Formats: sequence, C-alpha cells, structure tokens
Amino acid sequence: MNLDNIRIVLVNTTHPGNIGGVARAMKNMGLSRLYLVAPEKFPDEQAVWRAASAGDLLDSAVVTATVEEAIGDCQFVVGTSARERRIPWPLLDPRQCAARIDPLSGQEQVAVMFGREDRGLTNEELQLCNLHLNIPTSDAYSSLNLAMAVQIVCYELRMLLVQPGLPQTEDAQWDTPFCTVENLERFYEHLEQTLTEIEFLDPAAPRQLMARLRRLYGRVRLDEMELNILRGILTETRKWVARANAPDDRSN
Amino acid sequence: MNLDNIRIVLVNTTHPGNIGGVARAMKNMGLSRLYLVAPEKFPDEQAVWRAASAGDLLDSAVVTATVEEAIGDCQFVVGTSARERRIPWPLLDPRQCAARIDPLSGQEQVAVMFGREDRGLTNEELQLCNLHLNIPTSDAYSSLNLAMAVQIVCYELRMLLVQPGLPQTEDAQWDTPFCTVENLERFYEHLEQTLTEIEFLDPAAPRQLMARLRRLYGRVRLDEMELNILRGILTETRKWVARANAPDDRSN
Repeated sequence: MNLDNIRIVLVNTTHPGNIGGVARAMKNMGLSRLYLVAPEKFPDEQAVWRAASAGDLLDSAVVTATVEEAIGDCQFVVGTSARERRIPWPLLDPRQCAARIDPLSGQEQVAVMFGREDRGLTNEELQLCNLHLNIPTSDAYSSLNLAMAVQIVCYELRMLLVQPGLPQTEDAQWDTPFCTVENLERFYEHLEQTLTEIEFLDPAAPRQLMARLRRLYGRVRLDEMELNILRGILTETRKWVARANAPDDRSN
Repeated sequence: MNLDNIRIVLVNTTHPGNIGGVARAMKNMGLSRLYLVAPEKFPDEQAVWRAASAGDLLDSAVVTATVEEAIGDCQFVVGTSARERRIPWPLLDPRQCAARIDPLSGQEQVAVMFGREDRGLTNEELQLCNLHLNIPTSDAYSSLNLAMAVQIVCYELRMLLVQPGLPQTEDAQWDTPFCTVENLERFYEHLEQTLTEIEFLDPAAPRQLMARLRRLYGRVRLDEMELNILRGILTETRKWVARANAPDDRSN
C-alpha cells in the first residue's frame, strides 16, 4: 500500500468545515493528497479550524474546475455511492475496496471520489469510475457526514498498511512473561494451605472451592509478577495467623 | 451482535459539537445509547446542529456525574487509549475489539468509553476497563477528532452485524446473467468475420489481434445484454459493408 499514490477527490463540497474535517481525517490516517472539484467556498476559515493540525493538506490541496481534471491522470477511480442505481456497477464495501486498491497503489494513481453533501455523485460522475463504494449504514439514518465517510475509507486503507504489524492478540505487548504451570501449581498449594490456616477452607468439606479458584486464575492467565504479588499476600496473611496463634502475643 | 446492548460513553467532553457528531455517527451505524459523563456544555445548540437527524439520541442521552454511574451495570467495558501506558493492558484495534464485543452483546451490557478531547481517559478510568482499544493512526498526526473515533468503532461494530449479508464480490448484485462460454465463442466468431470484412484483420497475417480481444473481453466478464449489444454493433457494421459492396449502391 502506497498512500502517496491515493488521492481523495471532493466534488462540489458545500460546507468548508467538511473540507477541513476531511483534511484532518486524511492526515490522521497518513493520506496527504486532497483534490477539490469546484468547492463552494475555499479557502475558508471554517476549513482551517476543522482541519486542526492538518492545515498543510489544505495548503497543498489541488482545486480544479472539473472532475476530469482531478482524475485525468489516474489509472483506477472509485466513486462513493448510495445503493440502488439504475444500472448496477461493481459495488464494494470500504474493506473490499481498500483490498482492491492495495496492490494497485504501488505503481498506479488511484482516486477515491466523494460527492456533494446532499446528493452525492451524479450518474455521469459515477460512470467515470472503475468501481463503486458503499458504506454500510443503518436504514433508519443512512446519510453519513462527508468527513466521516472519508474517515472510514482512509481508516480501511491504513488498516491494510499497518495490520501485518499490529499485535494479533491482546497479550502480544505484555511486559512480563506469563507464569508457567509449575509456578502456578506452587501458588495453588500455597493458596490452599493459607485458606486452610485462616479456616476459610475446611479440608474435611472442601466443596468445589479450589476448583473454582483454579478456574478463575486459569481464565486470566497470570504473569510472573502478578503471581509473585499474590504469593506475597499469602505469605503476609500466614504471618498474621502465626502471630495470632503465638503464645507471646496472646492477650487474655 | 445486538447494538442495543452497546452504549457509547463520552467522558468530560469539552465541545458540544463533538457530542452532536457522535450522536450522528452512532445513529448512522445503528447504535442508539449515548451516555455523557459530566459534559462541559450540554444540552447545547452546537450539539443539535452537528447531530443533524440524530437529535433523538441527544434527547435520550443519559447524563451522569461519574464514570461509575455510566458503566455500573455493564459486564464488559472497553476504553479507548493511546498506546504506551505505564502498565500494559490488553490492547486491541477496533476490528479485533468489535469481534470481542460481538458474542457478548447478545446477553450482556457493553460500554465503549471515549475520553476528553485533549487528554483521553485517565489511568484510573482505564483501570475500570476489561480491554483497551487503540485506533491505528499516522505518527505524523495521531490525534483523532472524538466523533471520528466513535465513527470508526461504530462502523466496525456495524460491519460485523451486516457483513454476512453483504455481497462478497463486486458482481454479486448484477442485474443480468453473465454470458456463457458458448455464447461468448459465437461472439468471437462474429467479431472475427466482421473485422475481416472491414479489412481490419488480415487472415493471412492475423498477428495477435483476436488473442488480445479475447483477453480484453475475458477480463471484463460480459453479461448477456452486453454481449447482445456488441453483436448488434457487429451486425449493423456488416450491413454497411454489404451495402458498400452491393452493385446497386455503387457510385462511380
């Protein structure tokens, strides 16, 4: 994935705030090439405000009079679309679309076009595209804000860029080794002794207490430091039991 | 996935516009339960404006004084987090996180918490969570707008809800059957005859012309209607050749 070969093209945007929101969404995800086809108001301070630290993308934005000028040098063009066009076009969700763009972006110029806030792209504009993209939405309210739509598409592109390097499990970045079965078994012995000493566990009627505690700690996968903390608590507890039982400390 | 059991919790939000943006993002993706922990300004007309047609989510938003009140009845709590915490916590990207929430949401109450615009969630708030969520961003500009972050998470939840029903290929919703090999072969014969008649193809030196045309149409997968259109063009073309060759029409 080469995000530098992918441009976001906004067609006839009405609200300059949305242009700023798009610039920020793009920069957050590592995209930088913004094309504006006949924007209603640009430059505009609403755009600058919403762009926050992505003002450089507004400065380098390419403003054109027509869609053809914005995408003329592209080999692959995607247009965002609501469903239900009269002539069906190849239609993908943002994830499938990012997967199609990925191998092309190394060598080719790719454009993803977004239409007007109220009416999207025209049929003529959609017919310039190789592929149509549709973002799944709720039937109850299907009209996404323009910058939100760009955010989702740029997020999917970035996910393909970084996913191989992301941790595959929630434990992948753990700072301490997870404990071994051997050490865990020592802990359970220590725990059982302690619970017996404090008379919480009755060896004559153990019920399922140890089984339940084993299930609890097994489920959580303790690391070595956590195991040491728990054993430290047990050791201290047993000291108090010993102290309470010692003749010297006994008051009467 | 039951989106009705998933609440979005915003902690100490500064800008009411962001609350409105969050409401819209949620409703677009089919979520409805918004909790606001000590928002700076709410209700506020900026929120209403940004919410667009999601004002009902603002009306039904639950405002609480503390995080504990907002998540007290939840069985699973996710907190959004920048990387690099002092004590690592189980950390997932939005996609993995949605996959964890999916099976729980049928029976349990799930909260996804988002922190302050400038500083996110505190360490104490993050320690209330079962899991931390991190959205991959560009190193050059990693600070996502709050509503954008919510949009991405809600999008991933919706994708898991709808994905089994989404077309798996770009051709899945085609309106016309794709042509059979048999009909395609008839078209190639027709095409070859016509190209010979118009003297574009020299049978004595055919070069790779037909192979190239086969590759072109094979790549595109013609449907039956498209095939009929192309054959219609060939038929009409041949009529003009016949007309040009007919003695009656010959001028001299």
